[in-house]
Amino acid sequence: MPRISKKGQWMPESPIRKLVPFAEMAKKKGHKVYHLNIGQPDIKTPEVAINAVKNTDITVLEYSHSAGFESYRKKLSAYYKTHGLPVETEDIIITTGGSEALLFAIGTALDQGEEIIIPEPFYANYNGFSTASGVTVVPVTTSLENNFELPPISEFEKLITPKTKAILICNPGNPTGRLYTYNEIVLLAEIVKKHDLFLIADEVYREFIYDVNEKHYSVLNIEGIEQNAIMIDSVSKRFSMCGARIGCIVSKNKDVMEAAMKFAQARLSPPTFAQIASEAALDTPQSYFDEVTIEYKSRRDTLVEELNKIEGVEVGVPSGAFYCIAKLPVDNADDFARWLLESYDKNGETVMIAPAEGFYSTQGLGLKEVRIAYVLKKEDLIRSVEILKDALKVYNSL
Amino acid sequence: MPRISKKGQWMPESPIRKLVPFAEMAKKKGHKVYHLNIGQPDIKTPEVAINAVKNTDITVLEYSHSAGFESYRKKLSAYYKTHGLPVETEDIIITTGGSEALLFAIGTALDQGEEIIIPEPFYANYNGFSTASGVTVVPVTTSLENNFELPPISEFEKLITPKTKAILICNPGNPTGRLYTYNEIVLLAEIVKKHDLFLIADEVYREFIYDVNEKHYSVLNIEGIEQNAIMIDSVSKRFSMCGARIGCIVSKNKDVMEAAMKFAQARLSPPTFAQIASEAALDTPQSYFDEVTIEYKSRRDTLVEELNKIEGVEVGVPSGAFYCIAKLPVDNADDFARWLLESYDKNGETVMIAPAEGFYSTQGLGLKEVRIAYVLKKEDLIRSVEILKDALKVYNSL
Repeated sequence: MPRISKKGQWMPESPIRKLVPFAEMAKKKGHKVYHLNIGQPDIKTPEVAINAVKNTDITVLEYSHSAGFESYRKKLSAYYKTHGLPVETEDIIITTGGSEALLFAIGTALDQGEEIIIPEPFYANYNGFSTASGVTVVPVTTSLENNFELPPISEFEKLITPKTKAILICNPGNPTGRLYTYNEIVLLAEIVKKHDLFLIADEVYREFIYDVNEKHYSVLNIEGIEQNAIMIDSVSKRFSMCGARIGCIVSKNKDVMEAAMKFAQARLSPPTFAQIASEAALDTPQSYFDEVTIEYKSRRDTLVEELNKIEGVEVGVPSGAFYCIAKLPVDNADDFARWLLESYDKNGETVMIAPAEGFYSTQGLGLKEVRIAYVLKKEDLIRSVEILKDALKVYNSL
Repeated sequence: MPRISKKGQWMPESPIRKLVPFAEMAKKKGHKVYHLNIGQPDIKTPEVAINAVKNTDITVLEYSHSAGFESYRKKLSAYYKTHGLPVETEDIIITTGGSEALLFAIGTALDQGEEIIIPEPFYANYNGFSTASGVTVVPVTTSLENNFELPPISEFEKLITPKTKAILICNPGNPTGRLYTYNEIVLLAEIVKKHDLFLIADEVYREFIYDVNEKHYSVLNIEGIEQNAIMIDSVSKRFSMCGARIGCIVSKNKDVMEAAMKFAQARLSPPTFAQIASEAALDTPQSYFDEVTIEYKSRRDTLVEELNKIEGVEVGVPSGAFYCIAKLPVDNADDFARWLLESYDKNGETVMIAPAEGFYSTQGLGLKEVRIAYVLKKEDLIRSVEILKDALKVYNSL
């Protein structure tokens, strides 16, 4: 029997999805599972997007251009310009989700055995894409205690070797909710300029910022790093269209775009129905986003307030995105998360959370932490935290 | 300025798509371009598939399971069983096109620097997926002269090294139209058993077979290689749904499926709208396929007949899929194909063909050959070949 590749063995399981079989078992037992584990919002997709697909007059579902519909890229360029980002049509390749954009960015920037520096905790699938690309993740550690602020430049420079080719950030951050300050982005820009690195920024949560005084600083807006910056975007969260699987890779660097285009051609094209929906979604009225922001802000406030009521739980206040990292009074959050699905219920209900260990690259970090997505409506969040509180009591008295 | 990866530089341009900018220019000049370059059928997508999407009552476009809808996988298992393939639900992971299934299969079977043997000429994007995965393609050459028959086992064994991990075939073949005989498949089975290799079979054209005496032999039906066989499938051609971007990877090997599932989790899920369409497409009545087969058979016959009328053109008779390789009376088919778009038209019309060089891995092979897809209706095929005939005359008198 042939043996699978080392890569296949080393591919990490998604900490967000690896407990899915246990959740399925819990559901088969008739238990209701509140999904705090996954960034799947319950917010309605804009009707204009769904209707565009429902009203399509397609008779042959054809491939599109490998870079995506030209009409969509043009409209997207206009959208970015409206939002202050100097993005031309030719700076954009439409991808199958932000996931594929990340895969293209990593493949374009790094070869097998080269290194990418990522502030940890980070979106766990960065590990997956790096492993799939044979790239080594070098974490720079941030922590709940100082709200996941980036360390000084000297900490980064300790990690830079001749193999370092890129820094990857998520801003606002999944799983931390960190919104990087202007000074933090400038610090990163200085490092990538000085050491000739790519700065890959996953900015898919750009619109999810909850304080009027806070502002998002895109890597596309920092002068002097036009050739270093690669921006990753997606419709998944902005329009609550996770299932569309449409994102894009954006860069002013022509070599990057040319290489990314070759990766894009190999897989032929992004999905057609989803492009129709995504293009139409750009006509979503501002009122939709205003409502969504108010809703998430209030969910965030509710979640943090409720979690703070549980003794022994530590949680930061996320500035953006819709996740927070919470430290629980348990020794092994992974074990606890599994137990919640396998062996616990409160009146037939339980919660699913993502153990944070998988969001760290440094072994041994995040063992007591979980990522909680506040993608459920407030009463469900309150109920979920009640369940969590009770479960912690039961678990800790086992 | 940071430099892109070697992988990014080495990624091959798609021979099918690299001439797209020239086709776009031709169209901007007002020329009509007959697309013989790409396997984009003009056949209507089954209405049942389009209507399923149009009638959807989705309000939140959610992620699906990383392996795809369970309902779809179940129905697909039943579909395979009806077609004599022993495929269970758990043997299937739904992917974003056959493209992603190939990427998962290669990533699962091979590590950086390992070797995959592929009969050439082969579907050019196998090069792209191999380069993206850091895998070396080792071609075993077949030729137009003997209708792309596989060479004897000894030719394969000359190429097998300790780094060889897999053989990849396309059956029926793109770009050759070759339908492997039972003996050829058994030969491959013997090799992979003896040398403990994976046998990855791209069977997306399974239904496109034009002679009643011919039969498709799937790698899933050969006893003794259950642990070696990985089958790649797609809805693109079967249902004329190229733009859906839905395929699947199928294997009885649990290690393969477990690793593929980790790749699948990293990219979250295949597109939701397209899964709805693909699941519904399984209800397409048999009459649709009967008509399609009759239509393609007649297109194939027309194309081959017309091509044979041109002096100096050699073409085999494809048994399956909807491509053929034709040898043209030119020194450089790449130059000719570009010239067709850039500098030629016959009454405002021209044709786009795919230079076959990119379908070979051995340098210098296929220079005079092109791949022609017979995906247009007969009158357009006849008109295309007329244009080609005239163009060859003009080109060769330049």
